[in-house]
Amino acid sequence: MNLLRVNMTEGKISFEPFSQTKILGGRATIDSLLTQQGFPAAHPLAEQSLLIVAPGIFAGTSAPQSGRLSIGGKSPLTGGIKEANVGGTAGHKLGRLGIMGIVVEGRSKEWQVLKIGRQGVSLEKADGLAGMNNYSACDLLRRKYGDRVGIIVIGPAGEMKLANSTVAVTDPEGRPSRHAARGGVGAIMGAKGLKAMVIDDEGGALRKAADEEAFREAAKKAAEAIQNFPLTAGLHNMGTAIFVNMDNGRGSLPTRNHREGSFEKAADIGPAKLMELVKTRGGAMGHGCLPGCVVRCSPIFHDPSGKFLTAALEYETICMLGSNLGIDDLDAIARMDRRCDDLGLDTIEMGCTIGVLNDAGLFRFGDAARAEELIEEIAKGTPMGRILGSGVALTARAFGVARVPEVKGQGIAAHAARSSKGWGVTYATSPQGADHTAGAVLEEPLSKTGQGDRSRKAQIMNASLDATGLCQFTFLTPKLIVPMINGLYGVNWTVEEYLELGKEMLRQERTFNLKAGIWPGADRLPEWMGREPLPPTNAVFDVPLEDLDSVFNF
Amino acid sequence: MNLLRVNMTEGKISFEPFSQTKILGGRATIDSLLTQQGFPAAHPLAEQSLLIVAPGIFAGTSAPQSGRLSIGGKSPLTGGIKEANVGGTAGHKLGRLGIMGIVVEGRSKEWQVLKIGRQGVSLEKADGLAGMNNYSACDLLRRKYGDRVGIIVIGPAGEMKLANSTVAVTDPEGRPSRHAARGGVGAIMGAKGLKAMVIDDEGGALRKAADEEAFREAAKKAAEAIQNFPLTAGLHNMGTAIFVNMDNGRGSLPTRNHREGSFEKAADIGPAKLMELVKTRGGAMGHGCLPGCVVRCSPIFHDPSGKFLTAALEYETICMLGSNLGIDDLDAIARMDRRCDDLGLDTIEMGCTIGVLNDAGLFRFGDAARAEELIEEIAKGTPMGRILGSGVALTARAFGVARVPEVKGQGIAAHAARSSKGWGVTYATSPQGADHTAGAVLEEPLSKTGQGDRSRKAQIMNASLDATGLCQFTFLTPKLIVPMINGLYGVNWTVEEYLELGKEMLRQERTFNLKAGIWPGADRLPEWMGREPLPPTNAVFDVPLEDLDSVFNF
Repeated sequence: MNLLRVNMTEGKISFEPFSQTKILGGRATIDSLLTQQGFPAAHPLAEQSLLIVAPGIFAGTSAPQSGRLSIGGKSPLTGGIKEANVGGTAGHKLGRLGIMGIVVEGRSKEWQVLKIGRQGVSLEKADGLAGMNNYSACDLLRRKYGDRVGIIVIGPAGEMKLANSTVAVTDPEGRPSRHAARGGVGAIMGAKGLKAMVIDDEGGALRKAADEEAFREAAKKAAEAIQNFPLTAGLHNMGTAIFVNMDNGRGSLPTRNHREGSFEKAADIGPAKLMELVKTRGGAMGHGCLPGCVVRCSPIFHDPSGKFLTAALEYETICMLGSNLGIDDLDAIARMDRRCDDLGLDTIEMGCTIGVLNDAGLFRFGDAARAEELIEEIAKGTPMGRILGSGVALTARAFGVARVPEVKGQGIAAHAARSSKGWGVTYATSPQGADHTAGAVLEEPLSKTGQGDRSRKAQIMNASLDATGLCQFTFLTPKLIVPMINGLYGVNWTVEEYLELGKEMLRQERTFNLKAGIWPGADRLPEWMGREPLPPTNAVFDVPLEDLDSVFNF
Repeated sequence: MNLLRVNMTEGKISFEPFSQTKILGGRATIDSLLTQQGFPAAHPLAEQSLLIVAPGIFAGTSAPQSGRLSIGGKSPLTGGIKEANVGGTAGHKLGRLGIMGIVVEGRSKEWQVLKIGRQGVSLEKADGLAGMNNYSACDLLRRKYGDRVGIIVIGPAGEMKLANSTVAVTDPEGRPSRHAARGGVGAIMGAKGLKAMVIDDEGGALRKAADEEAFREAAKKAAEAIQNFPLTAGLHNMGTAIFVNMDNGRGSLPTRNHREGSFEKAADIGPAKLMELVKTRGGAMGHGCLPGCVVRCSPIFHDPSGKFLTAALEYETICMLGSNLGIDDLDAIARMDRRCDDLGLDTIEMGCTIGVLNDAGLFRFGDAARAEELIEEIAKGTPMGRILGSGVALTARAFGVARVPEVKGQGIAAHAARSSKGWGVTYATSPQGADHTAGAVLEEPLSKTGQGDRSRKAQIMNASLDATGLCQFTFLTPKLIVPMINGLYGVNWTVEEYLELGKEMLRQERTFNLKAGIWPGADRLPEWMGREPLPPTNAVFDVPLEDLDSVFNF
């Protein structure tokens, strides 16, 4: 297995052997490389800052639903370490080529495309691609490199080095509909002068396991467990829109700039409506974004004329661009989703950003046309667009708004912290900022006690999972994951050793952040969430500070 | 002595006795009040955040050159504690009224004016003042309240709650030419809905000293020491423009976005040129901004037609809007100074901000017309203006610029850190961010050793001084200051006790910052200053991190 190093300044490409001493993948690879080679004190967009792309431990194997790809570096939004992971085909393809990590360093003056294949790796001029939206760019790249390539690409937002910018990855049909969305990883790639990476795994092969039989057996058991998990059928049939109902019911559906926890129009943006529109217009529920996906939770959404509009209209998008903006029009939400995917913008950050404009008198809740217009400002690259494309914290500052739903400079995701207090602890303390994927806690959402312990457990579990490249919606327990690792690598890990990997990752992330100037004092939710009750639960975030500060006691 | 408390939400005004247990003033008052009553976790513009106005220990006495006024709160730029002090007449007038502090809390929905006089204190509607520039606002207020009032006022920048916004204070002629400029204190006042404070000290009186004779004697000695200090005559005759020559000679005059340390056109913006223009056009050198000023270093600058343009064309302004932008036209610099004073913008932050636009391709060095045009964007309140008015860190982020001259979100002042390494340590470590007034170090500017010790000493000395309300250009040693305190309060302080006050202030400021999430890891200069040599000295900032981290070991 190899690590690919690309120096953009010199146009130099080299291979190194990938970690021989440790089992690493995904977020763990990023944490380890940034710990050894990163520059925590440097500006995220500086020439010496690193962009790291890392498939998970199971990349290129037949482990079910496992090809997620981690993309990371120093976040332009938080100023701390960042790993954002994403579905699509690129992770699996890199694994099939034996590439377990890509380190991109330096800066090219002209936009480049990194072409990766069995025959070699090369940097090529990004002719005609500069300024191009993701969908058009992928069309052009597929025409040039063939329909079967996997593409990792940035849109205009990443090119403009906006702090809210994503890295898109193509799905099995070649659409740039999957996004390593959070923390501004698109801007890190943009600062390198790298428009796209094209991965052609023609001639590559599934990785061989050290103990093929043990691995096959473990993978089979895992696939069965996913198939039988209670939520799987619901996710498959309804997509992640299923959470609209669940969060709305629990009072944790951010509504109107995080002012309410349920939305009277939730039914209009929920799974039933989504399924109805898909049924009448074409499109599909139950699409898989990853090779080998069991759950297949992605909806393919068509516009009223029956033409493809967007893929994977996800819960976080529906909430943050829907209820959080008081918008009840699923078509408008889908159009904004497509536009964000095309420009390379994180929909969570975008929804938080437009939300605070209400306090600035620049947006009225429910005004979908205005929300769409605001996103167009980013496309145009106007000063207003640069403000909005820089995320919620910067937007609030530029317009003098004091009530800001952010942690460490990053917008808070779509499970309201006050009505999901354990999740709130994760938002506050995760070295990654307020990500919904950093450690979900669903138990006793309104209790103020025990949430530090719950979040700690969830964050450790989750970090380990983010190393594997397994999708969170596998809901696999360590007991089912560890036998696959043991089969693949011929080791005898215990569950404890597997969880130790997650602990080590969190320690490395905290250490990076300390060196970057982000200390534990930043592990706080916005102060107003402790004062302002969130209807209908009317909960405030009242988890004791000691509990927040205890999360990393392990 | 009283503390005045103003609740803007309820329109409630009350008096409390001022600190009976401790001798406090200025920055020490702010530190003490924020420690006891502040909300470090709250947003700087939140309703519960405090704006504090505090005259120095010697306010309202005959101590020479001592009426500086401290204005502070939680900084919208740094997110940490902020004290910015300013000359003008308001500090002295508050002292004569026996008011040693004003705490403004809450938020008024309509713009208000706080009228303070011997007859009482009241909140009045700011009729016709909203949106008004500082000079016009002061004209209107003086017409209403009389020519002899002192005025504390915010311009449109503060009203817009921009993070680079000042609080202006009138000079003896009633011009809003003196600014508590750094850290965005104008936005804190703006967030309270307070446009101006008008201080009428008619019927007030000089404060009585506990030991009148001892105080008079000590004040006399202090005045003589100021008069005889070697730099006094130079400052009086040439203004602070004298530092253009000194810094240019030492290679520490920030030039072209902090890329060089000397400016080939320094003579065109230096003291000789300034004096020549003042001589031919009218205006004056040697104006005093404070009652009882001995040094009187302010130039009154007229335009080519002989009409008053701006007062106190200071070194920091001349450098940051001049050499740092490659601008050699003193008239253009003076026009920008006036415009910043009128809008309520810090010229240091403004110069840093326009400087980084060069890296974004939006400004060419030397293009004074473009620089003036950019400042006008702020006046217009356009999105571009909101970016620029939010300071250098936000501007750099919005435009994807990685090389940013800032510490803790605040632009670096006009004595280049790389060629003034002790000063650089102060910029890095001061709880206030990169202020030129937080602790100047001139000794061995290019040595990498001993700078932590020098900065520590300077920061302690300076903190104590900022409690007194004495101007830094008195260059008074503690030995000359302490007898005035002893005479005024009837105590027997030693020099050590006086310096202990400064230590206690710094401890309080650090504690506030810790609670606000700003930990010692943020005590760093930008990483690129450690790599990029600054011509002509070609120095990099190479003070060991241990030295930075040792500054607060006392």
